[in-house]
Amino acid sequence: MIYVSRKEHFNAAHKLYNPAWSKEKNQEIFGACANENWHGHNFELIVTVKGKPDPGTGFVIDLKKLSTLIRDEVVEKLDHKNLNLDVDFLKDKLPSCETLAVEVWKILAPKITGISQFGTLHCVRLYETPRNYVDYLGE
Amino acid sequence: MIYVSRKEHFNAAHKLYNPAWSKEKNQEIFGACANENWHGHNFELIVTVKGKPDPGTGFVIDLKKLSTLIRDEVVEKLDHKNLNLDVDFLKDKLPSCETLAVEVWKILAPKITGISQFGTLHCVRLYETPRNYVDYLGE
Amino acid sequence: MIYVSRKEHFNAAHKLYNPAWSKEKNQEIFGACANENWHGHNFELIVTVKGKPDPGTGFVIDLKKLSTLIRDEVVEKLDHKNLNLDVDFLKDKLPSCETLAVEVWKILAPKITGISQFGTLHCVRLYETPRNYVDYLGE
Amino acid sequence: MIYVSRKEHFNAAHKLYNPAWSKEKNQEIFGACANENWHGHNFELIVTVKGKPDPGTGFVIDLKKLSTLIRDEVVEKLDHKNLNLDVDFLKDKLPSCETLAVEVWKILAPKITGISQFGTLHCVRLYETPRNYVDYLGE
Amino acid sequence: MIYVSRKEHFNAAHKLYNPAWSKEKNQEIFGACANENWHGHNFELIVTVKGKPDPGTGFVIDLKKLSTLIRDEVVEKLDHKNLNLDVDFLKDKLPSCETLAVEVWKILAPKITGISQFGTLHCVRLYETPRNYVDYLGE
Amino acid sequence: MIYVSRKEHFNAAHKLYNPAWSKEKNQEIFGACANENWHGHNFELIVTVKGKPDPGTGFVIDLKKLSTLIRDEVVEKLDHKNLNLDVDFLKDKLPSCETLAVEVWKILAPKITGISQFGTLHCVRLYETPRNYVDYLGE
Repeated sequence: MIYVSRKEHFNAAHKLYNPAWSKEKNQEIFGACANENWHGHNFELIVTVKGKPDPGTGFVIDLKKLSTLIRDEVVEKLDHKNLNLDVDFLKDKLPSCETLAVEVWKILAPKITGISQFGTLHCVRLYETPRNYVDYLGE
Repeated sequence: MIYVSRKEHFNAAHKLYNPAWSKEKNQEIFGACANENWHGHNFELIVTVKGKPDPGTGFVIDLKKLSTLIRDEVVEKLDHKNLNLDVDFLKDKLPSCETLAVEVWKILAPKITGISQFGTLHCVRLYETPRNYVDYLGE
Repeated sequence: MIYVSRKEHFNAAHKLYNPAWSKEKNQEIFGACANENWHGHNFELIVTVKGKPDPGTGFVIDLKKLSTLIRDEVVEKLDHKNLNLDVDFLKDKLPSCETLAVEVWKILAPKITGISQFGTLHCVRLYETPRNYVDYLGE
Repeated sequence: MIYVSRKEHFNAAHKLYNPAWSKEKNQEIFGACANENWHGHNFELIVTVKGKPDPGTGFVIDLKKLSTLIRDEVVEKLDHKNLNLDVDFLKDKLPSCETLAVEVWKILAPKITGISQFGTLHCVRLYETPRNYVDYLGE
Repeated sequence: MIYVSRKEHFNAAHKLYNPAWSKEKNQEIFGACANENWHGHNFELIVTVKGKPDPGTGFVIDLKKLSTLIRDEVVEKLDHKNLNLDVDFLKDKLPSCETLAVEVWKILAPKITGISQFGTLHCVRLYETPRNYVDYLGE
Repeated sequence: MIYVSRKEHFNAAHKLYNPAWSKEKNQEIFGACANENWHGHNFELIVTVKGKPDPGTGFVIDLKKLSTLIRDEVVEKLDHKNLNLDVDFLKDKLPSCETLAVEVWKILAPKITGISQFGTLHCVRLYETPRNYVDYLGE
């Protein structure tokens, strides 16, 4: 079993704001992250696939195909976007880093099986800043 | 003459949009950066001060004071903000990385003289992403 | 289950020296790290908390609160300090990176429950240099 | 149980080319990585050892000894080399990052027991680029 | 005057070998870098353009256009290539990092005028490794 | 003219303390940096040499020779040392980052002429932390 990882990035705006709460409570809970007019980040996304290497290629997964998959299915939909307003799969969700990692998992997990006979999704790591990041392993 | 540098960071939203142009021209010129609903970045700001070291302290400038100055005068006004909407000193300006570096210079240059007898501002470097950055040397 | 991580840093002096041994044996075992007059490092500390996100906030743990906790309980006590001489919780301990990670765990684990209903401490990672680091998972 | 990690690096040339296949199939599967005249990378290698700290030293493993072991047994044989042509332990193997991590494991695992009473090899992580890497945990 | 920088990367094989010298002299002068069967690197290339910002866009140069130019004219010709064998503009040249930076300058300088009314090439920085790099400013 | 740079590192303890001042004044001016029992850093040192490339080698300076020179003349004397107590060339000097950069320049400038016919020292850059650094250009 080998774990293979690919890093991609995207730049997006968001705010943390729970519409079920008052403006004051949002301010109290989320602080500067609730700024009405948004703020943003350079997100770094690391996708890890685990499996046995294919004897013919030595690959668990072709990293060029994995990179293309992440770009087409995730980066394309998030880069230079507003996570609260512009993204179908985040509609009606609070776009915290945790939520985003889970949603990226749901998109990628079934499609990785499609491009790799040997690998399955192991981990989605998402850096919101170089100091803050989350990992989701699918359960 | 020694050059002393301090790095700080802030996270902000912006869009590149020239109100004198049509929506189509903005889209054509700025591409994804013109996204109506904003996008954002983790900006890294490096401020360089040059001068002779103070014989008593060995410092050109006290980096704790420089850090406090940058945080109070720049980071506080930009962090978790929308550069197009929330920032007094960017009002009616197109918040490109170039513009932002020049405006940061204008704020810091006179104040550095106030906290250092020996140093003057030499350079403002601003990273919009780890791959894109600008330097402004004041002229 | 999501894993959320926060990175903080501190700068400290230490030496590796076992008082039960002769100076010669310390020199032989620890080499330059036993230098009588100390040496030091820029430590980077990554604290990982695991749990289910709070449905209201989307957070496993509020990273601002986690950051404040780490700074108050750990960084404040280690930053610009001598790990052999200045730190209560390292008294009579050999301040190797391994020991330090375990002691940081003991401090943070009970307090994280106090600031997060949903998260528990998962890992303490401590970089002594960009090339040397340890992980402690609590058992 | 503590996990202790050491990072080393080496620069090498390779190509991905399966001699059982036609030139066209290699081109199709490996793309630019099959370039006949080779390409190369600055590889970063992180070796993680797990165990209980030695009560006398506070170490799971002496990182200077681990560094020397990695340099003598791995880096020396790979640095400024051609992975397809110059390396005994890669003979007749397709030098993908996956294969290389497994072979490094096989070399280091038995020798780590020789330099540490308390530690065993836990993980070999190999970065081919800052964006592509693999982990092997020995099974 | 503002300086705007863009970072790109490529992976290539090369060797340092002066055909006017004996094999022994090459070995003596270039050491491991003369390894007959090549070695390689992940090169990082930073291109800096200086000029006044365009009043309409706030840009000295459109970084998307600069990125495309560097990729089309430089990265495309070097990535996953052998610098001694595969690259027209390095024919009969010793592909040291110094030589490569100068040749990249010669390619880019005239073309930057073509994509920017306001900017001229200021510096080509080339990292061969994270520890070794060169700068060329055109004279 | 080309600028060639090499990065090395060392770990050291120091404190900022002017013996001509009272303990209270030191505390007031240098704050935590005056901690009696020292603190420390992982210093990163970048040495830049400028010159014309040697037509035979393509090198301004042999980076292996430059690396050896820096390690023998600078790193060896600073690594795992106390900058206030253990270093001949810092005797009776306040070991600020500024002072250290100037002293490194004085050591290296004459010796670089000895290992390179074509290069002269251009810049010493010293990182005390990833956020604080100085540059000295010799005048």
